[in-house]
Amino acid sequence: MTIDARLIKQIAFIHEIDKLKYIQRKTRLFNSTRTENDAEHSWHLAMMTIVLAEHSNVPLDVLKVMKMVLIHDVVEIDAGDVFLYDTKRSHSNTEAERAAAERIFGMLPVEQETELKALWEEFEDGKTAEAKFARAMDRLEPLLQNVSNDGGTWREHNVDYSDVYKTQVVIRDGSETIWKHAEPMLEDVFKKGFLKKAS
Amino acid sequence: MTIDARLIKQIAFIHEIDKLKYIQRKTRLFNSTRTENDAEHSWHLAMMTIVLAEHSNVPLDVLKVMKMVLIHDVVEIDAGDVFLYDTKRSHSNTEAERAAAERIFGMLPVEQETELKALWEEFEDGKTAEAKFARAMDRLEPLLQNVSNDGGTWREHNVDYSDVYKTQVVIRDGSETIWKHAEPMLEDVFKKGFLKKAS
Repeated sequence: MTIDARLIKQIAFIHEIDKLKYIQRKTRLFNSTRTENDAEHSWHLAMMTIVLAEHSNVPLDVLKVMKMVLIHDVVEIDAGDVFLYDTKRSHSNTEAERAAAERIFGMLPVEQETELKALWEEFEDGKTAEAKFARAMDRLEPLLQNVSNDGGTWREHNVDYSDVYKTQVVIRDGSETIWKHAEPMLEDVFKKGFLKKAS
Repeated sequence: MTIDARLIKQIAFIHEIDKLKYIQRKTRLFNSTRTENDAEHSWHLAMMTIVLAEHSNVPLDVLKVMKMVLIHDVVEIDAGDVFLYDTKRSHSNTEAERAAAERIFGMLPVEQETELKALWEEFEDGKTAEAKFARAMDRLEPLLQNVSNDGGTWREHNVDYSDVYKTQVVIRDGSETIWKHAEPMLEDVFKKGFLKKAS
């Protein structure tokens, strides 16, 4: 493929992913009622990676984590955002998301398509050090937001404390240090009565 | 400083930079009338860096470029966004921006503060390969957006073709390849009558 043909594909991709700015998440900004969109969310995770990577349980390829968090929600352009606590719909790696990855990353020159699809799959699988840390960032941002909003969307959607805990404890797989700091925040939200325990 | 003290500072910084999501740029999204905010813009530049870094005139430290584009507008939380073609106000490296860099990056542990302030200064100076490429991305995104909007904010604000050209030609310092592709887009906007020449 000529350089010019590569560039045409790359610019079409750059144009297409602008749509991520219209995908609204359930979570609200810090101390705010305004919901966050996926582009803002992805930017925030990348910034968190810059300042928090030192707390990873194991040494990281930071550039790889950055790419992962920047692209991890691109599939939602087609597949939409599903609330993490939605009991009816799976929130990750669905058929719709895989089709979206094929279509959107498929706009790029083939070895870039292969790289970004592999990074997205690696993030979804959550097994490597980079994926564990990226997923920790993806949990920590809404945790901080919901804490700043007195329970935020957990409270609005009446999510059980044990479900929040189960979802958030994966932060520990990326960073014991961060989890040691985040867990008391969750407990505090519970103690204040913003989160309920079903049993 | 203890790890815990570091983390408290880092989380305060993460909380603070959420405000970047409220800073509206002049430029509008692709094929849209909705203005873009600085967090969305910064995410987009990082994505562009992932797919376009191969076209740099010289080999790049890609992680460094990514950090630069992610943080380059953080100072606007305090200093606000100034239109690139504003003839009354300087749009970069003003006293207000330097004070903002001190305050906001100053929330971090000292060696992170030093790193991010230095990256921001390097971006503003525009002399290194990474800064040149990061600045090329910062020009290319609004170029593509304004092209998609039939002249967009250039046309709305009646900016002269030669001023647009002067601002955009710095893309060439980062990538001759990309400029070869971008320049005809500008000419096309001019030929369609969306941009005027004063002389």
